Amino acid sequence: MNENTMNLKSFLSDYISCKSVSSDSNLESGMADARRHVIKFLEKLQLDVREVKSGRHAAIFAKSEQKSDRPTVLVYGHYDVQPADDAELWDSDPFVLSERNGRLYARGISDNKGCHSVILAAIHDLTAGAKNLPINLKFVLEGEEEIGSCGMEKFLFQMKDELSADFALVADTWSLDEKNIVITTALRGIVGLELEVCGPERDLHSGYGGCVLNPIQALTDICSALHDRDGRVNVPGFYDDVAMPSDWDREQVARLPMGDEALGRILGVKRFKVPDPEFSAAETMRFLPTLEFNGITGGFQGEGIKTVIPRRASVKITCRLVHNQRAEKIQALLEKTLANLCPAEVSLSTKFDHSANPYLFDVKNVTNKTLKNAIKLVNDGVKTVFGNVPIFLREGGSIGLVTMLKEILGIDSLLIGLSTSEDNCHGPNESIAISMLEKGREFFRLFFSGL
Amino acid sequence: MNENTMNLKSFLSDYISCKSVSSDSNLESGMADARRHVIKFLEKLQLDVREVKSGRHAAIFAKSEQKSDRPTVLVYGHYDVQPADDAELWDSDPFVLSERNGRLYARGISDNKGCHSVILAAIHDLTAGAKNLPINLKFVLEGEEEIGSCGMEKFLFQMKDELSADFALVADTWSLDEKNIVITTALRGIVGLELEVCGPERDLHSGYGGCVLNPIQALTDICSALHDRDGRVNVPGFYDDVAMPSDWDREQVARLPMGDEALGRILGVKRFKVPDPEFSAAETMRFLPTLEFNGITGGFQGEGIKTVIPRRASVKITCRLVHNQRAEKIQALLEKTLANLCPAEVSLSTKFDHSANPYLFDVKNVTNKTLKNAIKLVNDGVKTVFGNVPIFLREGGSIGLVTMLKEILGIDSLLIGLSTSEDNCHGPNESIAISMLEKGREFFRLFFSGL
Repeated sequence: MNENTMNLKSFLSDYISCKSVSSDSNLESGMADARRHVIKFLEKLQLDVREVKSGRHAAIFAKSEQKSDRPTVLVYGHYDVQPADDAELWDSDPFVLSERNGRLYARGISDNKGCHSVILAAIHDLTAGAKNLPINLKFVLEGEEEIGSCGMEKFLFQMKDELSADFALVADTWSLDEKNIVITTALRGIVGLELEVCGPERDLHSGYGGCVLNPIQALTDICSALHDRDGRVNVPGFYDDVAMPSDWDREQVARLPMGDEALGRILGVKRFKVPDPEFSAAETMRFLPTLEFNGITGGFQGEGIKTVIPRRASVKITCRLVHNQRAEKIQALLEKTLANLCPAEVSLSTKFDHSANPYLFDVKNVTNKTLKNAIKLVNDGVKTVFGNVPIFLREGGSIGLVTMLKEILGIDSLLIGLSTSEDNCHGPNESIAISMLEKGREFFRLFFSGL
Repeated sequence: MNENTMNLKSFLSDYISCKSVSSDSNLESGMADARRHVIKFLEKLQLDVREVKSGRHAAIFAKSEQKSDRPTVLVYGHYDVQPADDAELWDSDPFVLSERNGRLYARGISDNKGCHSVILAAIHDLTAGAKNLPINLKFVLEGEEEIGSCGMEKFLFQMKDELSADFALVADTWSLDEKNIVITTALRGIVGLELEVCGPERDLHSGYGGCVLNPIQALTDICSALHDRDGRVNVPGFYDDVAMPSDWDREQVARLPMGDEALGRILGVKRFKVPDPEFSAAETMRFLPTLEFNGITGGFQGEGIKTVIPRRASVKITCRLVHNQRAEKIQALLEKTLANLCPAEVSLSTKFDHSANPYLFDVKNVTNKTLKNAIKLVNDGVKTVFGNVPIFLREGGSIGLVTMLKEILGIDSLLIGLSTSEDNCHGPNESIAISMLEKGREFFRLFFSGL
């Protein structure tokens, strides 16, 4: 790396070779290697760096000298990656950076090592030669994003005072392509639960069938009752707090240069089913809450036929929530509805898993001056570097950490997407376009200079 | 074994030690041992014996000298047994005959080695010393009953001419206890199928949820629609051919010395659900057809939550049919109903498995004189030996072979139950009361003498 411009590819090549798979307990050393690699770089940037362990893998926290009259930006990223155990599907070693046709291939190159390294590179570009940026910088690099950010709530509470900022800057979301950069303005919340229906004390021979309520039948009756014929969630009160999107929100979706048909082709969905004909599929997944069955099981799972009435059956459910629903209230509504749906001949147990409130970044009503300025800089910078002003989109997924940053620290996140569907994050041959990394770096240089 | 009375326990001790588990390909030699053991005995009875292989394991066929002016009885049993791989739950070696508190313990001692050996013992008692029974005897001892009688249809067609008989005699059903011997007069038929619902081309992240019809949701909607709120099967035409039981049939059920509450305790069912309040639970399982879900699966099967919309979900179904339903017609009705229930956003495939028509032995309208006499002998013999006249009960289960005997050979089966629930057939510590074996032997002596 020379003095004024960091060699990003060389940095990434070393970073990628650290096998930082957070879910694999045999790869603890890869996690430590990745931390060492980043810490060394952050120290070169003359930041105050330390490791903070609140869960399974330590997070890295770093900050520049903080002065009270300057804007404060909290950059978030994660150094852990998904497993690459589908090795036979990779065209090159997932832990060796490989370049083909203008793209870099490796596990984590898009999600998230490449994307947050672009921010580091931009800062390096601006501060090399001992120049100072007139802002307070803070970094949080998590090691548990791919395993549910399990220690991050504790981390945020522990570090609450040190993490205060005008806003967080996150490059861990999606854009359509290099010409259509997406700023994510909302994430859906989540309520996860598992239902178990128990019937007879033991599996019964189905020769007794006809007078015993089959737990699979009871479960499918309950599941079926949870939506109406149009596909709306049939839990009384479920939609009460749903805030309808503004016209502006809908205009942003309309800016996506593809209709539902093209979207269907990308997702492998032949025909969408929208519960409200007012909304397109692209709107439905952004503006409406859901109740989805993620897994169902009960009775005989082998090949062929076994004449059994099983003693139990169960289903896993997650609800996605939108602004202004609250996870706790939805949980209570579900509990009540499910209890009402359970027939007397079986028993029902409900186990709630993790939950998160929805996140909404109300771009049009920002009061913090620094953040207001940052939004303008994003708008102008994206136009300058990528050619079009960004699309400000609500998204259907959930990032627990972003909700926590808002709920625990009170700060909004600027979510700037550098990944695209082509990158195949989490899958084999994960990649990112070199041009996206270069443009991203240029954009962040412009952005930080403007702050 | 002395000349005039066979030592049944000694015969069974050797028979039990043959590990004739038909499903276990490592135990072929145990199957051969069992065949040799029985064949040796049948030859001593001066029968003409041979092995006939039509499926995986040979059946044994034996016959006495046949004279046209005498009644012909076809005795059926099976020499194969269930596996005993739950060995740690057994109090003694499952393949060593063990006596405790008036009961014999071993795998197969009740189902079916003990029960058909009682018939062999009775015949030995009557024919020892070269006496001849004035009847034509035929034996079929199957080696595939516990694996679905897979080769028996072919066997019956092959042997059609040699198997003609006035009736079949089978001791492979259930009685309540030694005081309440049950003659099974009907068996339900069966139609087995598997449904698969396919949605998106691949599993989708549930962040896209809300506009994609989830295959689990579609499947549970379909399953739920297959019964009405009362629990009746909701397939148009399903009940059209159901013949209602006669008053006599209902009187027989009423003779069971226990109500639904006691039945529920035995089955581990706290509360029955009967679709027709006209019928008790004990009647429902005998007189009405069913549609039961035997297994359901789809999506994430691991621990915790995975936010996925699965690409497929499936369910295994068996219908039990009663007189006068036909498997083929029910299959067609199901196919039509299911096609109508499938929403346009997903595709449905239906795979039918094995099927069998219901069997009804119309005891009150028998025309064959030998069989008519046999029924009287059973009635009187059971009263003499066990203390009460037998209960003539329709049963909820299915025995494919009995239906085949009727459909292919045109012969009815006298199904005399020597097993009771206490025997725990198919489970660990399978057993039978010595008194049941002794009384059974005495009964069959009386029965054959009377013919």
